[in-house]
Amino acid sequence: MKHLTGCFSNVEGFSSVGKHVGIKPADKDFAVLLSDSVCTAAAVYTRNQIQGAPLQVTKEHLTNNSAQAIVVNSGVANVATGRKGVDNAVKTTELLAAELGIKADDVIVASTGVIGPQLPMDKITAGITGIKQELGSNEDFAEAICTTDTHKKEVCVTAYGFTIAGCAKGAGMIAPNMATMLSFIATDAAIDGQELSALLHDCVDASFNMMSIDMDTSTSDMVVVMANGRVQADTKQFREVLQYVCQELAKMVARDGEGATKLIISETRGAHSQSDARKVARSIVASNLVKTAVYGNDPNWGRLMMALGNSGAEQINQDTIQIWINQNLIVENGAAAPGYDAEKLTALLADNEEVTITIDLQQGSDSATAYGCDMSEDYVKINAEYTT
Amino acid sequence: MKHLTGCFSNVEGFSSVGKHVGIKPADKDFAVLLSDSVCTAAAVYTRNQIQGAPLQVTKEHLTNNSAQAIVVNSGVANVATGRKGVDNAVKTTELLAAELGIKADDVIVASTGVIGPQLPMDKITAGITGIKQELGSNEDFAEAICTTDTHKKEVCVTAYGFTIAGCAKGAGMIAPNMATMLSFIATDAAIDGQELSALLHDCVDASFNMMSIDMDTSTSDMVVVMANGRVQADTKQFREVLQYVCQELAKMVARDGEGATKLIISETRGAHSQSDARKVARSIVASNLVKTAVYGNDPNWGRLMMALGNSGAEQINQDTIQIWINQNLIVENGAAAPGYDAEKLTALLADNEEVTITIDLQQGSDSATAYGCDMSEDYVKINAEYTT
Repeated sequence: MKHLTGCFSNVEGFSSVGKHVGIKPADKDFAVLLSDSVCTAAAVYTRNQIQGAPLQVTKEHLTNNSAQAIVVNSGVANVATGRKGVDNAVKTTELLAAELGIKADDVIVASTGVIGPQLPMDKITAGITGIKQELGSNEDFAEAICTTDTHKKEVCVTAYGFTIAGCAKGAGMIAPNMATMLSFIATDAAIDGQELSALLHDCVDASFNMMSIDMDTSTSDMVVVMANGRVQADTKQFREVLQYVCQELAKMVARDGEGATKLIISETRGAHSQSDARKVARSIVASNLVKTAVYGNDPNWGRLMMALGNSGAEQINQDTIQIWINQNLIVENGAAAPGYDAEKLTALLADNEEVTITIDLQQGSDSATAYGCDMSEDYVKINAEYTT
Repeated sequence: MKHLTGCFSNVEGFSSVGKHVGIKPADKDFAVLLSDSVCTAAAVYTRNQIQGAPLQVTKEHLTNNSAQAIVVNSGVANVATGRKGVDNAVKTTELLAAELGIKADDVIVASTGVIGPQLPMDKITAGITGIKQELGSNEDFAEAICTTDTHKKEVCVTAYGFTIAGCAKGAGMIAPNMATMLSFIATDAAIDGQELSALLHDCVDASFNMMSIDMDTSTSDMVVVMANGRVQADTKQFREVLQYVCQELAKMVARDGEGATKLIISETRGAHSQSDARKVARSIVASNLVKTAVYGNDPNWGRLMMALGNSGAEQINQDTIQIWINQNLIVENGAAAPGYDAEKLTALLADNEEVTITIDLQQGSDSATAYGCDMSEDYVKINAEYTT
């Protein structure tokens, strides 16, 4: 697997652009991705029962598992905007389709930003006019979809003859009053639409769905993949690379969590079932008390025991639990490991921006990995000081 | 219902004491409650799958629904301490029983504090010696069970001829490396043991189980009630008063949450089922983003919509949702209410230490109330700066 610099420009047949249309004061806030031909496409959406207008429109447009373009704005989420919000999302796809000479129901639409306000359709209309000529003029798609992210997140790898490029945004599951984790992935591989959908669901389950910044699932989360079919691809190989791309993007989002200073990788093994492994791995990155301990460089294994005991996993025996922090055994058979040295571990944590917490339940052979970040005072500041 | 000052001394037949035995550097850390006669008794325990040694012993001692004394230490939780931890908990009940001339299996034992270390049995033994003479010499039981609590929590009410006194401790679901929400309740009412257990479960479901400081359930949570049977009581009336006592104590614990500046009362009505009402009410006090918004005096209804959409409730229609903050309508039919005035609401929030968030789902007639607190930078500081 070879990493390439940049994002969508590496995938033959795709062109993109990111620009400022005036929804945000100064930053880029509008992005379009176009494929030369109609692609097979699939998406995974938030499980939040309150869902943004763009998701409702995109779901309808993707029932046939095909798409040719993606249009995204940042600054306004178009959530809790009623019938008018849905009309505006539809209108956006129609305007872009007319500009690009494609079908409106081949356009995927997404929005991220403040919940409540309507989209400024005058600015969006002006931004779409003439965008056909701008496509390919820059690689700023990933930048234009950011809200409170401190930097853009993109990855592109080539392997087995095909290429997958993807980008993501998100700094809180919901950023300060800004909804959304969004990810867009493009590939030249040839994958049938329904198969693409199944593969994406699997890969998202092992990546974005195993990531937590604050357990607050946004109302607009969406991961989309488009495949233009130029390169024949083996399904197993495609799945391997797609999963890698999703996991790399998920790690980037976790590392850039609001106020975060450290990436937490939570590995669980020896679980009785896959479900147990996932629950335990996620419980570690979900616990505020674990997150604050990591921030404080505190090898607080009592909190790890507390968190995994709350995971809802079916089969846990406290007397068989082993825990490592960055490969150092700290809990053996449910109690402090012999030779446990809190001072040494505190220094180790202080020296590392990546903390791997490994738990062996010794109840079976299933394993899972989750991604998260620590919690600093800045998480509270960022989220308390923002006022509607 | 009449409130009485103080706690257990108001209930005829009970005596208690709180004192310093040296587990903590200077604060009181050891408490005993004794009934003149054997009581019916019931308890509710943490659902965390990792459970402290004292819970294992208390569960066994309460299988017959009778008890005569409670012994509690703070400073060390006796959790993740293996076989020796269980032996020490048993030994504590035996030492107290010998001192008081009662049966060891009529003694309930609880511990709260750091996870990991063994109980200092020399200090506990010295503390128990002669404690029979100290019983009734003070009303410091509630103080002696505190860890990071900023003040003791106790309530005593008399109604319908009987009296219920209770106290609680807890400032995080797990305080900085200190486990535990504990509550002890004594009454002179005559209630059959099994009925007492059923009533306690019901009342805890509507009080302590609807309270969240950080969603991190401790490994040692326990609520115990002892009834010495001196006063005949009507079950319905007893239930009413017991529920009131539990809710008052739950509110005191929520208000004293680590770093908290405000109490949040989350009311849900119009739910399709009791389960939906409870899920929605709890989702509001569980969300970090709602908690930080309340701390920042931000009437951020987008976050309220996000949180309730994540509640897991079965029947939610975003177009029928109404939301009030302290009786001011802010969301009507899922969008900003006409006349919504963010500045006025910000001022209102700034002026109130108690924030009531009322949600009407308009899907049925069930309702529920949950208790929580806001999240400040101090929550992170308290939990990051403590080092094992």
